[in-house]
Amino acid sequence: MSTLHIQTKKRSEFIDITRDIQKAVNSQKINEGICVVFCPHTTAGLTINENADPCVKKDIISHLEELVPEDKPYSHSEGNSDSHIKSSLVGSSLNIIIENNQLVLGTWQGIYFCEFDGPRSRNVFIKAIGG
Amino acid sequence: MSTLHIQTKKRSEFIDITRDIQKAVNSQKINEGICVVFCPHTTAGLTINENADPCVKKDIISHLEELVPEDKPYSHSEGNSDSHIKSSLVGSSLNIIIENNQLVLGTWQGIYFCEFDGPRSRNVFIKAIGG
Amino acid sequence: MSTLHIQTKKRSEFIDITRDIQKAVNSQKINEGICVVFCPHTTAGLTINENADPCVKKDIISHLEELVPEDKPYSHSEGNSDSHIKSSLVGSSLNIIIENNQLVLGTWQGIYFCEFDGPRSRNVFIKAIGG
Repeated sequence: MSTLHIQTKKRSEFIDITRDIQKAVNSQKINEGICVVFCPHTTAGLTINENADPCVKKDIISHLEELVPEDKPYSHSEGNSDSHIKSSLVGSSLNIIIENNQLVLGTWQGIYFCEFDGPRSRNVFIKAIGG
Repeated sequence: MSTLHIQTKKRSEFIDITRDIQKAVNSQKINEGICVVFCPHTTAGLTINENADPCVKKDIISHLEELVPEDKPYSHSEGNSDSHIKSSLVGSSLNIIIENNQLVLGTWQGIYFCEFDGPRSRNVFIKAIGG
Repeated sequence: MSTLHIQTKKRSEFIDITRDIQKAVNSQKINEGICVVFCPHTTAGLTINENADPCVKKDIISHLEELVPEDKPYSHSEGNSDSHIKSSLVGSSLNIIIENNQLVLGTWQGIYFCEFDGPRSRNVFIKAIGG
C-alpha cells in the first residue's frame, strides 16, 4: 500500500491526483490487475471526471453546494454535515484497471481528490493487486 | 465469499457493519489485499462515513429524503422509487484495502448498510482477495 | 481486459449490460474473485439497479434530470455540465464478486450503462481477477 499526502487549501476543492496514483502503481510493480484508491476521511471523497476544462470541476463543486447547502440546520453540531453528505454521494473509493503497469483511463478522465471540509492535511491510500 | 444477514427495523436506517466485515476478513485469512463488500438489493446500499456522532447518519438520511422525496408521482407503482434512486446515488459496493489481515479505515470511518425500503431481511456479501 | 462497445440512442438512457459483463467474465476464465467494470467516459456512468420493471430506470433518469438540470447557467461551455455532474453522482466503476465463474448479483439486480450525454459510441472495460 502507498500513501499520498495532500494539503488542501479551500473548503471545497478538487485536486487532480492522476499522476500520483500512476506513480504508486509504478512503484508497486503490478503489470496487470486493478488499483484501489481509498480516501480515509469522512468529509472528503474521490471521483473521476474531466481533466481538460477546469470549469467542469467548478460546476460539479458548485452544484453539489446547491444540492447540499452548508448552512441548513443539521443535527450534527460541527458545521460540516454537508461535507459528510457530499462524501457519501461522491464515494470514498475507486477502482481502476491496470494494463502494462498503466492505469487504463479514458482520454478525458482525471482522478480527483474531493475536499469538502478544507483546508486540511489529507491522505489517500493506493493498493494495486495483480490478476 | 461470506454472507452477513441483517434485519432492518425502519424504512430508512444506516446500520454499522464494520465489525462484521472485519470478522469476515479474518475468516477469509487474507493478509494483504482488498475486500469487496456488495449489497445484492436494489432499494438499499452501502456507504462509509463517520462512526462517532450518530447525528451524522441522521443528517445523511434526512437530507437524502429531502433530495429524493418518497411521495413524488413516480412511474414505478410499488411506492419505493425513492429507495431505488437513493440506492444508485449511494452505490451498492465498496472496496477497502486490507493490511495485516485488518481493514485499513480512517479513524472516524465506519462501514454502513443503508436501508432505504425497510424493514426487511437483508444480506451483504463480502469477498477478500490477496495480492 | 475485455472491451464492450455500446451505441447509445438518447441523451439520457440506461442500458442493461449484465449479460455482456457475464460473457466477459466467462471468457476471462476466473472461477472465484472479483470483476471490475469501468466506464472510461466523463459524461456517462455505471450503476446496479432493478432489472424487472423498466419504470425504475425511467424514474432514476428523470429524477437525476430534476436534481441536475440540463439548462442551468454552468461555467463549462459545452452544454453538458449536467452530464458530468451525474457521472460523478452515479460513479464510473463497479465491482462485483465472482463465484463458480458467475457474477454474484441479487435476484432483481441488473448492471446498467448510464448514458447522460448521448447519442454516442461508448466503451466499457471489464477485468476479472482471481483470489
